[in-house]
Amino acid sequence: MKIICKKSDLTESVNISLRAVSAKTTMPILECILINAEDGKITFTTNDMELGIETVVKGEVIEGGVIALSAKVFSDIVRKLPDNDVTIETDANLVAKITCEKARFNISGMTGEEFPALPKFEKNNGVTMSQFTLRELIRQTIFSISDNENNKLMTGELFEINGSEMRVVSLDGHRISLRKIKLGAEWGHIKVVVPGKTLSEVSKILSGDMEDVVRIYFTDKHVMYELENTIILSRLIEGEYYKIDQMFSADFETKVHINKKELFNCLDRATLLVKENEKKPIIMNVGEDKMEMRMNTSIGTLNEEIGITREGKDILIGFNPRFLIEALRVIDDEEIDIYLVNPKSPCFIKNSEESYIYLILPVNFNQAG
Amino acid sequence: MKIICKKSDLTESVNISLRAVSAKTTMPILECILINAEDGKITFTTNDMELGIETVVKGEVIEGGVIALSAKVFSDIVRKLPDNDVTIETDANLVAKITCEKARFNISGMTGEEFPALPKFEKNNGVTMSQFTLRELIRQTIFSISDNENNKLMTGELFEINGSEMRVVSLDGHRISLRKIKLGAEWGHIKVVVPGKTLSEVSKILSGDMEDVVRIYFTDKHVMYELENTIILSRLIEGEYYKIDQMFSADFETKVHINKKELFNCLDRATLLVKENEKKPIIMNVGEDKMEMRMNTSIGTLNEEIGITREGKDILIGFNPRFLIEALRVIDDEEIDIYLVNPKSPCFIKNSEESYIYLILPVNFNQAG
Repeated sequence: MKIICKKSDLTESVNISLRAVSAKTTMPILECILINAEDGKITFTTNDMELGIETVVKGEVIEGGVIALSAKVFSDIVRKLPDNDVTIETDANLVAKITCEKARFNISGMTGEEFPALPKFEKNNGVTMSQFTLRELIRQTIFSISDNENNKLMTGELFEINGSEMRVVSLDGHRISLRKIKLGAEWGHIKVVVPGKTLSEVSKILSGDMEDVVRIYFTDKHVMYELENTIILSRLIEGEYYKIDQMFSADFETKVHINKKELFNCLDRATLLVKENEKKPIIMNVGEDKMEMRMNTSIGTLNEEIGITREGKDILIGFNPRFLIEALRVIDDEEIDIYLVNPKSPCFIKNSEESYIYLILPVNFNQAG
Repeated sequence: MKIICKKSDLTESVNISLRAVSAKTTMPILECILINAEDGKITFTTNDMELGIETVVKGEVIEGGVIALSAKVFSDIVRKLPDNDVTIETDANLVAKITCEKARFNISGMTGEEFPALPKFEKNNGVTMSQFTLRELIRQTIFSISDNENNKLMTGELFEINGSEMRVVSLDGHRISLRKIKLGAEWGHIKVVVPGKTLSEVSKILSGDMEDVVRIYFTDKHVMYELENTIILSRLIEGEYYKIDQMFSADFETKVHINKKELFNCLDRATLLVKENEKKPIIMNVGEDKMEMRMNTSIGTLNEEIGITREGKDILIGFNPRFLIEALRVIDDEEIDIYLVNPKSPCFIKNSEESYIYLILPVNFNQAG
């Protein structure tokens, strides 16, 4: 094999490929990038058995061939080469010679034969959206997946399509995050659970550009994200996702209209009194036109008042401040509405069109606390 | 005690004070900032028993008094307060009430009585220089101190004044770094060893401005750095520093004139083939108008040629690439001179006026390597 690529093109493709390289594995071949040059086309493939990526690399094929190179070593080398043309040439002993200007690296590779091929995938009609939109959907929900591997479904996110509407849901037993968007066309009914780890890697590959498109294909075992020069293939999590609709009651006793930033800053201050691994609620005392916030820990106390507009009753309720903070962080609105029922029932932060709903369970607290 | 300060002024003073707060200590009082308000002046004092800092805080004293507050908690609170006036008020139970806009923190403090006062210090004539100059001197030498506490003197830096010349020296048994500057006046003879940890904290407090002045006072036990509103006091390391002058021979067999950036980039590439904790030399083969560089490790090999101007003989010599990299990183010259004697003797990187000298011992290598 002999190929010539610009250093900048190599860097871009390597960075994409690295997203599907196993950090911990007992199979050395999974730590590799498979470089394939044939019919004038260069592709990099990586596969950690959960996530697989194939990306086309700009460059010239002088001689076809295949080699698997350590992703870490190869990416380190590429990153530190001068900004110029890079030649990669392999010999019969699986040694890759990487040359750029006067620098010449020799590193040992592995035969591509052991490399696990990406699963065969039959493309049906793909759902299309901007990469920006998908990236935002992931960012706005992924923080509330669970990291408890004993409850596999909670470690993923529900992607559910009904006609021209798609919703993305994550939950961890204490809270639910939901985002909803309109699709450009009708797609029937699709319901899959995508691993959170996959989504986090995918979102790092997606561009933040509204113009760049991603096409998403589903089968019952896999999801595929197709970008311009890259396909990303992930396993799905099997099983029946939680019935969440019954949890979203429309009734409320109290509605609080509040400036998001003021609430966020207050919660941020309150958490600095909470030691790591300590669970202390922020206590919110909703009055007619103000909400008193109180945090009381072994470090000290914080009392603060925030001006609000209230509908309905007074209420005294406690929350894990981190759950509120994480939801507020991904809401773009400057003013938000919080819906409350009673001190034992979840609150909802949602907008009127319900394009986002964040449900958070309250915590018990000692009234004297 | 009751004082009122701007949040921004508090932040600035707290950040300076934090530099002398013990990270690990069994004495809780050493984790505190001592706040002292008297005669209309507010000072913060911190002391980790090696380094002590006293800084004057801009603000208004409503009522005099003293309290010691946990540096971590107090700095976290100050950082997260709104950008406005902050009132700090203490009561008879040593509770500090910190109020800013509608936020009100209560935290417990300690009596200032247990706080260890900074050592008494008699100011003699102080050496004056710009804060920028001192910061540069530290940055350009501190990387080659030793972290081996068994050899206390090597963990510090020599500050030696002879008349109107000051030199700063660090060494770790494998290399010596030396920087020399002219002082504005004659100062007699002073020779002290300042702990590296101190210097690293001091350099973080120094501004990068040529206009800002630092005055340095020495006794036989302490050094004091006096800035506009801050004094920093450090213990010295006792003992007789190494005789270094006899190591700086002026003889050489080979002189290599080379572009610093080209050499740096090549070394940077070479090190990526070296695994952590592995010791592999970069082998330099100096020829008439080029230097061949070679690195050979279990990961792979790098060969590279760099154009040079040479005086004297050919030489083949090996170095720890990290030692070369760290010296090159703090040299501002674009072109440098490397002086070599033989493969067993140290090399010198220095300029003609010898305002900097970096001595590095070579390493043995297998010729076949």
